[in-house]
Amino acid sequence: MIKQKATNIFWHGGDVTKEDRESALGQKGVVLWFTGLSGSGKSTVARAVEKKLFVAGHHAYVLDGDNIRFGLNKNLGFSPEDRTENIRRIGEVAKLFADAGVITLTAFISPYREDRDLARALLKEGEFIEIYVQCPVEECQKRDVKGLYKKARAGEIKEFTGVSAPYEEPAAPELVLDTAAAALEESAAKVISYLAAKGLIAGHLMPEKR
Amino acid sequence: MIKQKATNIFWHGGDVTKEDRESALGQKGVVLWFTGLSGSGKSTVARAVEKKLFVAGHHAYVLDGDNIRFGLNKNLGFSPEDRTENIRRIGEVAKLFADAGVITLTAFISPYREDRDLARALLKEGEFIEIYVQCPVEECQKRDVKGLYKKARAGEIKEFTGVSAPYEEPAAPELVLDTAAAALEESAAKVISYLAAKGLIAGHLMPEKR
Repeated sequence: MIKQKATNIFWHGGDVTKEDRESALGQKGVVLWFTGLSGSGKSTVARAVEKKLFVAGHHAYVLDGDNIRFGLNKNLGFSPEDRTENIRRIGEVAKLFADAGVITLTAFISPYREDRDLARALLKEGEFIEIYVQCPVEECQKRDVKGLYKKARAGEIKEFTGVSAPYEEPAAPELVLDTAAAALEESAAKVISYLAAKGLIAGHLMPEKR
Repeated sequence: MIKQKATNIFWHGGDVTKEDRESALGQKGVVLWFTGLSGSGKSTVARAVEKKLFVAGHHAYVLDGDNIRFGLNKNLGFSPEDRTENIRRIGEVAKLFADAGVITLTAFISPYREDRDLARALLKEGEFIEIYVQCPVEECQKRDVKGLYKKARAGEIKEFTGVSAPYEEPAAPELVLDTAAAALEESAAKVISYLAAKGLIAGHLMPEKR
């Protein structure tokens, strides 16, 4: 059940709007777009942020390879056209979730600046928060949680970002997380602090801050 | 801010699950799949249901032509393949929203039984609620809110469902709404009653029922 944050909010009687949902949820529907190399920690940080938001009474949702690649985008491969369409669809879905008032976290390599900028352009100023999950490729290779770097080096995976395909660093991301230096907790807290500072989540709802 | 329905719920500490979100929201993440002819009232009923749910403190969201055709599915036309891909993508997005704990309402003609069944197959038993918005084509043509039937009869729109393309009625829909006979309020209330009866929304959250 969603508790009204304020009792002086009256519903205007037309269709339910993004603003109506945001008022009811006590948060803004925004997109936290995590970008970075495979193994940099995008999904891990995104899920840690989701957890913190959930525990604090917020409604957040993570879109990542687990729920997108085998579902909505299962008919896409890794050609440049398919990569672009992959990110386009994710951007559109993230926009829908944000419109629903949900704090939406996307965790995809999204290596091309142009594709990320297209996703940004779908949203209003301030609603798209690009988070560069920075981690040296050597460190990502060392982690190699999914064994993908090994396969890429062996030539089993063609056009692997950071090895045989480019990664275009964000020019002006809203946030940079250095996951080689910072602990997971620290990175997640940095994102939460950003949301609170920008007024995207109600500060008093955050028990960690008390 | 989401208020916990019960205070004896402890969060298990892993990733946030569908069940966690459902507990926090006091509702089940389900898909209400409205299907029927153009002009039958799918979007109108879906938005009326969304309104009722919102006012009762629930989190619901409508996917319809307005937010899908010009966004996620703007690269699809009306060929049989594109119609199938259109419904496939909508089914996958509805699944994501349901996974997020949102009561998800989709309002698309979705004329082919096979396509609807594929959308149903993405969800667990009881999570996909097919709602046949029944209305004689003569009545839909009379309403012709968007002027599409006129264009279809004039041959300006090819393969228009109900005129020059088939509509396959649901064989066993969870609900049938007769929008030619019932008032909008009545149709919307019927959907809410179904959700309450199935325990998909907490009954005591519904002020209309008190």
